[in-house]
Amino acid sequence: MIRIIGFDADDTLWHNESIFEHAHVAYRQLLARYHPVEEVNRVLYATEMRNLPLYGYGVKGYMLSCVEAAIELTKGAISGPEIREILATGQRMLAHPVELLPGVTEVVPGLARDYRLLLITKGDLHHQEKKIEASGLAAHFHAIEIVSEKDGASYERVLRRHGVAAAEFAMVGNSLKSDILPVLGLGGAGVHVPYHITWAHERAEVPAAEKRFRRIEHLGELPPILSTL
Amino acid sequence: MIRIIGFDADDTLWHNESIFEHAHVAYRQLLARYHPVEEVNRVLYATEMRNLPLYGYGVKGYMLSCVEAAIELTKGAISGPEIREILATGQRMLAHPVELLPGVTEVVPGLARDYRLLLITKGDLHHQEKKIEASGLAAHFHAIEIVSEKDGASYERVLRRHGVAAAEFAMVGNSLKSDILPVLGLGGAGVHVPYHITWAHERAEVPAAEKRFRRIEHLGELPPILSTL
Repeated sequence: MIRIIGFDADDTLWHNESIFEHAHVAYRQLLARYHPVEEVNRVLYATEMRNLPLYGYGVKGYMLSCVEAAIELTKGAISGPEIREILATGQRMLAHPVELLPGVTEVVPGLARDYRLLLITKGDLHHQEKKIEASGLAAHFHAIEIVSEKDGASYERVLRRHGVAAAEFAMVGNSLKSDILPVLGLGGAGVHVPYHITWAHERAEVPAAEKRFRRIEHLGELPPILSTL
Repeated sequence: MIRIIGFDADDTLWHNESIFEHAHVAYRQLLARYHPVEEVNRVLYATEMRNLPLYGYGVKGYMLSCVEAAIELTKGAISGPEIREILATGQRMLAHPVELLPGVTEVVPGLARDYRLLLITKGDLHHQEKKIEASGLAAHFHAIEIVSEKDGASYERVLRRHGVAAAEFAMVGNSLKSDILPVLGLGGAGVHVPYHITWAHERAEVPAAEKRFRRIEHLGELPPILSTL
């Protein structure tokens, strides 16, 4: 029986990937006179993946990889003002208002009355803290855990710290790879709420035989299914 | 009577500001044909301070501010290869091995037998976690707290989470502003271990009348003074 619910934040409670997508569009436009879209995408993604062990997740690492990939894609010909444009786009991403997803303002306070809620998010500590504060949701969560990677070991640490057994824990999120699979692997339950864009790095599949796994369209569908997990 | 000791990490347990200083030297050399040292320092520091609310602390924000200040200082004339050089310097900072300060390998394990130790550090979550792991010191700490800002409110949260009264807590660190003053303000004790370089943003003064404040030369001097705080 579920007693504790973990919520992912980016693209589960509020829009995030759509903000990255807007930045991508501006980036591809900036480089359009050098390369077709596919080549820009390929080099940027390869740069991001190469830098991930060094930078971790978040907008600042994305900005740095955008600058590095632009230099590579233009063989060093990119200009100072063009790089300033990349930085300005990233700064707008960091300053972007938090826009909650449908159902969040009703579902989260309602569930907080019956369950203990944890907010479990990965990425940049400073930016995530700012977004949590701006969301107005912090008071509904028993604890906020910002981790550098969402894998089995990090979920195990979070559950141990809060004295929670995996059997009574459900994780809700948009990423099968980061929110669902590691929790199913520990014996917990996973509720997948897909966002309309998924970063290539977060794509994964869930085995069809998983009993403690559900997929819902939006958070409004979450409360009635919790008792079935 | 002190029962719990908090340790700062950067420039208290291991070298950090000296790595920034090396990067600064390379940055000033890169811009030497455009501006004298003082002007480079002034514009970079102003850029860092302007971006701090958006970026928070850490190497990635520093790298982004270096690129932005270089574009400003050269009126956009900086070249792609020169910006790649700034990025390469930052990546070397992130990959730099952790070098412990004198006394740390003896004092930390010794104190861990008699006191509960907390590691309390601010900055980039991903980079700090990597450094803590590389330091080999993690096992001596009861808990590791990475916060986005070290002020009275964040120390209060950490002490509350661990059920610690400020009266029985001593914080040890190189920054008067971040490690000492907020803890003295809560009624705790502060032990200042100056590092030979202090970032302008971290400079502060301690009132002469503070009874629960000590200054030591290196961590080897810490154990005997703890009973006097």
